[in-house]
Amino acid sequence: MYFIAVYDVGQGRVQKVMKFLRTYLNHVQNSVFEGELTPAQYAEVKHGIAKIINKEHDSVIFYNVGSTKWMEREILGQEKRSVSNFL
Amino acid sequence: MYFIAVYDVGQGRVQKVMKFLRTYLNHVQNSVFEGELTPAQYAEVKHGIAKIINKEHDSVIFYNVGSTKWMEREILGQEKRSVSNFL
Repeated sequence: MYFIAVYDVGQGRVQKVMKFLRTYLNHVQNSVFEGELTPAQYAEVKHGIAKIINKEHDSVIFYNVGSTKWMEREILGQEKRSVSNFL
Repeated sequence: MYFIAVYDVGQGRVQKVMKFLRTYLNHVQNSVFEGELTPAQYAEVKHGIAKIINKEHDSVIFYNVGSTKWMEREILGQEKRSVSNFL
């Protein structure tokens, strides 16, 4: 299953969320990650995120778009990929 | 066609981008919009965004996911919708 994950979390939790999501997904923009996850991995990601965020203040949305075959991506301006994708 | 739009733009352009995208899409998170667009509307949105952003520094990604039938959305934490959706 292919996912797009977007987050809006308090400043104190941004680094934790990014570090965690990077272990599963690719960083494609400031607060956006993308990638393939199995159902088991998706459950792990949700579990991990739920432990990090403050549910009263933060927001993380997961879009399951099924497959990249049924998705088109168009970028205006810069393609901001984090260096860590290439490590 | 159903779109998810995510942006990361310089502070001086955030309000312009938000105001513009709100005329076409729904605000679902800090820097995320969603909604149905015809091909003509999508062309207008891209044209409008291209005029606002600084292509050297800003990034706007449009995901065309076809239809919400083929997309699942799951939110952890707060569902942050902007008040202006309801005006």
